[in-house]
Amino acid sequence: MFSQDDYQWMSRALELARRGRYTTAPNPCVGCVLVKDGVVVGEGWHQRAGQPHAEVYALHGAGEAARGATAYVTLEPCSHHGRTPPCAEALIEAGVARVVAAMVDPNPQVGGRGLRMLSEAGIKTDFGLLSAEAEALNPGFFKRMRTGFPQVTVKLGASLDGRTAMKSGESQWITGPLARADVQRLRARHDAVLSSAETVLADGASLNVRWDELPASVKLAYPKESLRQPLRVVIDSQNRITPDLPLFASPGPVLLARLQSEGEWPESVQQLALPRLEERVDLVSLFMLLAKQGINSVLVEAGPRLCGALLEKGLVDELVLYQAPKLLGDEGRGMFQLPGLDRLFQAPKLTLKDVRMVGQDIRITAKLA
Amino acid sequence: MFSQDDYQWMSRALELARRGRYTTAPNPCVGCVLVKDGVVVGEGWHQRAGQPHAEVYALHGAGEAARGATAYVTLEPCSHHGRTPPCAEALIEAGVARVVAAMVDPNPQVGGRGLRMLSEAGIKTDFGLLSAEAEALNPGFFKRMRTGFPQVTVKLGASLDGRTAMKSGESQWITGPLARADVQRLRARHDAVLSSAETVLADGASLNVRWDELPASVKLAYPKESLRQPLRVVIDSQNRITPDLPLFASPGPVLLARLQSEGEWPESVQQLALPRLEERVDLVSLFMLLAKQGINSVLVEAGPRLCGALLEKGLVDELVLYQAPKLLGDEGRGMFQLPGLDRLFQAPKLTLKDVRMVGQDIRITAKLA
Repeated sequence: MFSQDDYQWMSRALELARRGRYTTAPNPCVGCVLVKDGVVVGEGWHQRAGQPHAEVYALHGAGEAARGATAYVTLEPCSHHGRTPPCAEALIEAGVARVVAAMVDPNPQVGGRGLRMLSEAGIKTDFGLLSAEAEALNPGFFKRMRTGFPQVTVKLGASLDGRTAMKSGESQWITGPLARADVQRLRARHDAVLSSAETVLADGASLNVRWDELPASVKLAYPKESLRQPLRVVIDSQNRITPDLPLFASPGPVLLARLQSEGEWPESVQQLALPRLEERVDLVSLFMLLAKQGINSVLVEAGPRLCGALLEKGLVDELVLYQAPKLLGDEGRGMFQLPGLDRLFQAPKLTLKDVRMVGQDIRITAKLA
Repeated sequence: MFSQDDYQWMSRALELARRGRYTTAPNPCVGCVLVKDGVVVGEGWHQRAGQPHAEVYALHGAGEAARGATAYVTLEPCSHHGRTPPCAEALIEAGVARVVAAMVDPNPQVGGRGLRMLSEAGIKTDFGLLSAEAEALNPGFFKRMRTGFPQVTVKLGASLDGRTAMKSGESQWITGPLARADVQRLRARHDAVLSSAETVLADGASLNVRWDELPASVKLAYPKESLRQPLRVVIDSQNRITPDLPLFASPGPVLLARLQSEGEWPESVQQLALPRLEERVDLVSLFMLLAKQGINSVLVEAGPRLCGALLEKGLVDELVLYQAPKLLGDEGRGMFQLPGLDRLFQAPKLTLKDVRMVGQDIRITAKLA
């Protein structure tokens, strides 16, 4: 059904889409290539929410040449009036002859309607070309659209024997500088960074993206002036967080997930009063509310209690583990408190996606099975 | 100093030497190539202690052609009368013109005397060609010769969060079948497998090499009829090991490392009464005695107490860690009890030698730094 040329142009569209990966949230990354008689006549990618979609840039570049062209889009063109008019309409008006979409948009406001509009206007439509690659572009957005929950990644830095800190809490630094730079990249790739009051109080963590510390390759793709701070979410069931912490000295919004609001806070700080579950903030409610606020992806940087609770509730999608070639011994702090786990067959299983060296450390990326 | 041809022939000699890696103990693996006018006239490798050395096989193959040839040997030819006559003498008698040795033999009975004998007989001698590769052939033998201690490798199978068993002790099976086959390969490569009474009693372990379970590639290199069982060493400070255990149902010698001998045992079982240190068998004495018995390499398969004690005493050379993509939680059993470790800077550091997939598991090989 798809020709070799189709694959080539869709690959190009995917490449363009990736340029938006640090900036499009809460929207997905999308790329578009317009091809006529084997020649690219227009290209575009989505850059920021509120700005034009990929198709609009590509059509603008093509001008009259769009007439009779084929549009390769990494996601079904939208059919609804959001902050911008529907792209399906723009493609019809420009007179394109064929639209190839890598996948149907799981956004319930679209969900096939974009392709139907095109098809009813007499445009040939195809979809499903390189769909796995297109899915991988926006795991958070697609999960949120399909389930109402954000994509959750737990990041941990540990020794080879699985310890994230000494008994005393000392943990600076278990992993090396390149692993720490890679964590900056992870933060930049997520819409929110989640931690607990305990961790924030103990480590004085600021949980922000420090542009200067990003890996060089990310700096190239993500200029300093485009930098966006992830929403820092701190679970604070006992209202222990105070405005004098380093967290508030660095720029970017903070959300305090509490059982009840308390105190006066600057505008960049939002308090969220959440339902109580076993004397703590209900995590399921928290994630549903984050998704409602447009948070596609959450990076968890927390201690064994919170990481364990998230795992037990089935809220974790992925684990990114940095392993330093050290041994800290059995008295060191572990990774996941899983008190309900008695038998080996109950142990959460993962599928390894990637294992590689980052400096002197091993980075393991695994999906919860 | 060395030509491209020299490198080529020494590489061949190293390849031949490796053929002996499952069978030469307590001797080192050695390979020899005899080359005359750019043509191989004889090849040999050492197969078993008591049988001829590599040079003898190569000279036998070459016959008269050895005269004027160059001998490439992965280890300095021996100069002493052991179970076989000195190879240096044989090379002189055969009239070889040049001997290239990858390295000098650290065996105090040789230690340069072999090369000197050759040189004094008017043979041109060179050494140091591909010496790192030659060292890597026999880490255990060389360590024993240089230090009087065997090479010690700790093998562990654990979850990604560093747990080797559930709190209940349940551990079958954390890792997958290919990782378990790889452990059989490790056992076959070591002269001794060390465990504790605790582990042997809890797991009913037999600690032997089961030929049928070896990886296919090892079976090809190591035919069933050549199979040698490693010496199984069990630390049994409280004389808890009894003759009815599965350990004694499988073939191969067993050494019980105790504080005092007790009971009647079959001939395949040796009791060793060792000095006491903190109510337990002194581990330093044990390893020195194992080295004296010709044990070059010890594979440790034990619990966190023994593994931790070995690490603390600086007795561990290498760690082979199989990591299963599972999470067992903080109540699971850890890898190393290191009670004396309080500060992060004191944590034992390792250098990663190899990280790869073995089936669904990750295998990490690391040297203690």
